[in-house]
Amino acid sequence: MEHTEVTVMEDIFERNDKIALETNQALSERGIFTVNIMGAPGVGKTTFLVRLIQLLAKPAFVIEGDIESDIDTKKLLDLGIAALQLNTGGACHLESTIIADAVKTVSLENGYLFIENIGNLVCPAEFIIGEHIKLLISTVTEGSDKPYKYPLAFEKADVIIINKADLSAYVDFDEAYFIKGIQALNKNAPIFKVSAKTGEGFGEVAAWITEQAKQINSSIKK
Amino acid sequence: MEHTEVTVMEDIFERNDKIALETNQALSERGIFTVNIMGAPGVGKTTFLVRLIQLLAKPAFVIEGDIESDIDTKKLLDLGIAALQLNTGGACHLESTIIADAVKTVSLENGYLFIENIGNLVCPAEFIIGEHIKLLISTVTEGSDKPYKYPLAFEKADVIIINKADLSAYVDFDEAYFIKGIQALNKNAPIFKVSAKTGEGFGEVAAWITEQAKQINSSIKK
Repeated sequence: MEHTEVTVMEDIFERNDKIALETNQALSERGIFTVNIMGAPGVGKTTFLVRLIQLLAKPAFVIEGDIESDIDTKKLLDLGIAALQLNTGGACHLESTIIADAVKTVSLENGYLFIENIGNLVCPAEFIIGEHIKLLISTVTEGSDKPYKYPLAFEKADVIIINKADLSAYVDFDEAYFIKGIQALNKNAPIFKVSAKTGEGFGEVAAWITEQAKQINSSIKK
Repeated sequence: MEHTEVTVMEDIFERNDKIALETNQALSERGIFTVNIMGAPGVGKTTFLVRLIQLLAKPAFVIEGDIESDIDTKKLLDLGIAALQLNTGGACHLESTIIADAVKTVSLENGYLFIENIGNLVCPAEFIIGEHIKLLISTVTEGSDKPYKYPLAFEKADVIIINKADLSAYVDFDEAYFIKGIQALNKNAPIFKVSAKTGEGFGEVAAWITEQAKQINSSIKK
């Protein structure tokens, strides 16, 4: 049985990656810079997106991944942000098949697509889903040992956000230890400290995302 | 391939549950009340255990589940709490096989075994590992929508802890909405609000755990 399990897992990853790369190509051709938003439950992924999207010059669309509920999509639509809800019904991460189908229904050209993955610091990091970059959100309230305990997500991230900076004064977050843990895994990802509650730090994040989108767009042959 | 996947998954759950029930029986016979500690990353599972164990009348042992690192086990040993580290190397939850082997090495009779699962609000809820009860830790900083978004963990829990009460004044946590979400899924689990940082609320939790351990012990035929 062990052998069967391994073979099935390899099939799943291979098939997932093939569809993800096709989706990425299709999104690039539509001029859509796509960001896979990862993070544990409750790190403020949706609130982060609300702040960020307000600062971007091009239109944005959000695909909300959740096991159940459409709480986040309703929140975005109420704020006038275009959004679509995907429910996995139990699965702990998004896979490329569900995203490939979803992006076909997204009415957007030349803009930003944010895909908010399931709140989970483990499994989403194992699957590409069609994104240009992975953005990982951590928080000062979660504690500074997270890169050491959940290395894959920090290793795979193209940019890392430390959210809830407004709570820094009330928690014991050792930022130097946190950053040291990241740098042992990932020397390239910039790290931005923000508060999605107050808006602090979002100018820098929006400027970085805008720059990344330009670089990717300019590399696409039209 | 779809059929193969389903069959393999059924085999995994069936085998897992069989071993978990054997482990549970063996632990009961040793007078060890076993608690499976679940919660997202950074909810304070280890700090919670440090506070709780100080208030229990019988000896306690902690099995620490992490993907990587032995940070939590070192923290416990430094405080004089008996502990053992298990690293899954990538797996997002503990399964019964690894626990069955681990409990054989635990030198404890008539006491409490706490198994700290991987920080993940999704996958650990799907697997029994030999426990008498599941204890789920959530926090005021994670937000009050968690029962709606991650229902299985809240449904399966025998007791639910709201941790980080010391941060209540600085976050928008709607406790009534949170509790309403739990009660739609689970009418039996008591809910305790605590601060593992200050120690607030731990007397009630320790009393409840002590009572549960008595009930389970008295139902075991020696």
